[in-house]
Amino acid sequence: MNFTAQDIAEFLQGEVDGDASVAVNNVSRIEEGKPGTLSFLANPKYEHHIYTTNSSIVLVNKDFKAAKEIKATLIRVEDAYQALAQLLEMYEQSKPQKVGIEEPSFVSKSATIGDKIYVGAFAYVGSNVKIGENVKIYPHTYIGDNVIIGDNTILNSGVKVYENCKIGNDCIIHSGSVIGADGFGFAPSSANDYKKVPQVGNVILEDHVEIGANTCIDRATMGSTIIRKGVKLDNLIQVAHNVEIDEHTVIASQTGIAGSSKVGKNCMFGGQVGIAGHLSIADEVKIAAQSGIGRNIKKQGEVLQGSPAFEFGPYQKSYVLFKNLPKMREQIMDLEKQVKKLEEEK
Amino acid sequence: MNFTAQDIAEFLQGEVDGDASVAVNNVSRIEEGKPGTLSFLANPKYEHHIYTTNSSIVLVNKDFKAAKEIKATLIRVEDAYQALAQLLEMYEQSKPQKVGIEEPSFVSKSATIGDKIYVGAFAYVGSNVKIGENVKIYPHTYIGDNVIIGDNTILNSGVKVYENCKIGNDCIIHSGSVIGADGFGFAPSSANDYKKVPQVGNVILEDHVEIGANTCIDRATMGSTIIRKGVKLDNLIQVAHNVEIDEHTVIASQTGIAGSSKVGKNCMFGGQVGIAGHLSIADEVKIAAQSGIGRNIKKQGEVLQGSPAFEFGPYQKSYVLFKNLPKMREQIMDLEKQVKKLEEEK
Amino acid sequence: MNFTAQDIAEFLQGEVDGDASVAVNNVSRIEEGKPGTLSFLANPKYEHHIYTTNSSIVLVNKDFKAAKEIKATLIRVEDAYQALAQLLEMYEQSKPQKVGIEEPSFVSKSATIGDKIYVGAFAYVGSNVKIGENVKIYPHTYIGDNVIIGDNTILNSGVKVYENCKIGNDCIIHSGSVIGADGFGFAPSSANDYKKVPQVGNVILEDHVEIGANTCIDRATMGSTIIRKGVKLDNLIQVAHNVEIDEHTVIASQTGIAGSSKVGKNCMFGGQVGIAGHLSIADEVKIAAQSGIGRNIKKQGEVLQGSPAFEFGPYQKSYVLFKNLPKMREQIMDLEKQVKKLEEEK
Repeated sequence: MNFTAQDIAEFLQGEVDGDASVAVNNVSRIEEGKPGTLSFLANPKYEHHIYTTNSSIVLVNKDFKAAKEIKATLIRVEDAYQALAQLLEMYEQSKPQKVGIEEPSFVSKSATIGDKIYVGAFAYVGSNVKIGENVKIYPHTYIGDNVIIGDNTILNSGVKVYENCKIGNDCIIHSGSVIGADGFGFAPSSANDYKKVPQVGNVILEDHVEIGANTCIDRATMGSTIIRKGVKLDNLIQVAHNVEIDEHTVIASQTGIAGSSKVGKNCMFGGQVGIAGHLSIADEVKIAAQSGIGRNIKKQGEVLQGSPAFEFGPYQKSYVLFKNLPKMREQIMDLEKQVKKLEEEK
Repeated sequence: MNFTAQDIAEFLQGEVDGDASVAVNNVSRIEEGKPGTLSFLANPKYEHHIYTTNSSIVLVNKDFKAAKEIKATLIRVEDAYQALAQLLEMYEQSKPQKVGIEEPSFVSKSATIGDKIYVGAFAYVGSNVKIGENVKIYPHTYIGDNVIIGDNTILNSGVKVYENCKIGNDCIIHSGSVIGADGFGFAPSSANDYKKVPQVGNVILEDHVEIGANTCIDRATMGSTIIRKGVKLDNLIQVAHNVEIDEHTVIASQTGIAGSSKVGKNCMFGGQVGIAGHLSIADEVKIAAQSGIGRNIKKQGEVLQGSPAFEFGPYQKSYVLFKNLPKMREQIMDLEKQVKKLEEEK
Repeated sequence: MNFTAQDIAEFLQGEVDGDASVAVNNVSRIEEGKPGTLSFLANPKYEHHIYTTNSSIVLVNKDFKAAKEIKATLIRVEDAYQALAQLLEMYEQSKPQKVGIEEPSFVSKSATIGDKIYVGAFAYVGSNVKIGENVKIYPHTYIGDNVIIGDNTILNSGVKVYENCKIGNDCIIHSGSVIGADGFGFAPSSANDYKKVPQVGNVILEDHVEIGANTCIDRATMGSTIIRKGVKLDNLIQVAHNVEIDEHTVIASQTGIAGSSKVGKNCMFGGQVGIAGHLSIADEVKIAAQSGIGRNIKKQGEVLQGSPAFEFGPYQKSYVLFKNLPKMREQIMDLEKQVKKLEEEK
């Protein structure tokens, strides 16, 4: 299927800059662009590729100013990355969708399932499960007893959802993620032994949540571990029991959040961040990759780095001086010599 | 089912402080307490909730002293968290237990299986496997050839156990954990290439071990990777080949232990800790989250922090000064000026 | 099956030092050596065990000089660890190999499958999949539509490969790894919301790649995430969308590489390393465990440590001084006193 620059610009409400009749039938990265494909430029780091790319069309931000001549036709839009998202979404939706029940699969007689559902082979749906419309349950997915799943949600192959958990509408969960395993709760019993504290709560994912691959969200000891509307979690993340993550927070891979901590709205955490237990993180907080948070963060929008973390700017200053510690030590030794000499001479 | 404060206090050998006839039928967190539920207070951080909670009963430690009036009936026990564990365990055991073999499942004819077992649909039990009594094998679990599993052990959905591994009695393994994948062993062969070192050993989990979700315990190159009695591992932990973790050690999420290291008894490691290979860690060592251990730790009970880690107290002192490096730099610059002046004036 | 020292030395092209007629039928670690077993000594840390081991034969490097008497027969080889790899490989290949199709399994009618294949029960092979010869697909493995897999590749139980990915010859992928889940791409849409950027690319694993357990390699937004020939990834690693890892690079457990970064050939990364997005890492770079890379590394063979990382040697020096910051502070305070006194006295 071919689309002209004119067609695409109309769909995206953008402006054509160049030959409006040029047509594409695929997408490509700007650095690997081929004739007949569409690319995008959003990160200025990649700007040099636009002058050499063989892509036929490039989406750019409205205010992009070319420093040299460009072969490709440009389509100027408000936000090139978002416009790309729109195009790719259209492309995805045009593909045939999985539907129907593949055999062998296991669906409990007491389960309730909505219309237009896909249940892959070897999927397991336990007792009293309720599943909405247009849900896709890929092969090897496990849905424990009494789980409730909303409409349009996708559980990729091998997702595991323990009993009593709730998953909202329009969620996507990637392969290998585990929703509702027991929280890590043990009471020291005799001198050197531990007694398991049964975890009788559940996990609630609200609507529009996306969970990456092999991420773990533990069930609450009592009550619920809650992931609110629009939260996006990357791969291999740990969310411990009774954590709450508020709306539209985005967390990169391999981050861990310990038990009972509350994370605010619209936060952004880099990869491999650690949050200790029983803490409260304000809205819009940003945390640099590999940082560790060991105290409450009360100030909205604070930016943090380090382990333990403090404000980003001061951390950067301290770290530059850390690199220069050998020089600092020399300065001190020089001073000691000079002062000693001054004292001897006085 | 309703229980009065009197009933519960008798079961826990505690003392009622308040109305002994008040009854509950569920548990709740103290900050979300509702009438008819029981809560507990162990962490002093949460004490303020006890004065406002709507829970009908609160378990507290014997020596708890109320600062204000409390509506709820208190039950005073030796250790409130442990008492909660006892109550929740009673609650868990009262629930109906899974038992029987769901179809389709795959159990090799040469496998031996004990009484009162649950084998979920799509579970796979390989050749010559031996499984004890009262074991629960949830759907999609894979048990490779020659594996031995003791009594009362629970393998949740999607656990993978490679051939020849041994799992003891009363273990719990959560979804997605992989027991016995190949250790990461490669011998540099020609200049730039690697030759796989086949991993012919196995993994041994002793009794009462609990393993979280998506944790990996690699098989030994030769001999065994060993997780001793009562060890508790959280989610997403890496245990490399030939590691040994001694009794009752507790390790938080996303920690990694490299090949051939030995960890002592009753250690406690925070989350995201790294232990380098071929090391030995003494008993009762505590390691702060995100720390990295690059040397043997010989002193029992040592507490460590940092990457690379050293003693906790000195680390804290150094870190405070790290934050103050910009100030320290100013002090040095001031001194330099003053000394220069003194020299010029002498 | 028994092999004499003579047999083994001939196979390995090594030299016998001791009784050439002594025979073994198993392998063991040198510290756990039993009569009738063969051990090896490569790491000098373990040398003391060679003087007490009960192993009958020990493989050692050609240039090994015994400091005391040794009971065992030695076999001197160029590289003891590599020689062990050769022996274990022979041992592995002598074991019976899985072959055939176990039922129930799901193989799409449109899939093409080579000879001498093993398809375990509950394995899923989607539409238009092409699989080479001598491939092993263990139970619960998921192979999405249009996936291509070369010859001799092993997918252990529970591996998940999303649609359109390509896997080369002679690869090994361990349980729970996820190849081709969506990259983590979201475009901020309205003030506080995110729009998913569909990930329409794929993952390519070239030949001789080994992937550990529960590792995640995300599909590209557009184009391919590429893991080149001979790369070895340990467990629980995150490889984000559009990353490229060049030939024979070896990466330890729990490391994460963010989107679009390019890693050179023959690099070695320790465990829990983090690489930020859109970076380029030169060939033969070595990165210490728990380090974080936030800039391009242009120098071939550079060795780095720290978070953010800089050169290994300077990092070590700075870190020694970090530990000594309390002493440095005292020196500064002493100097301040002395200077103050000098000024008062002048």
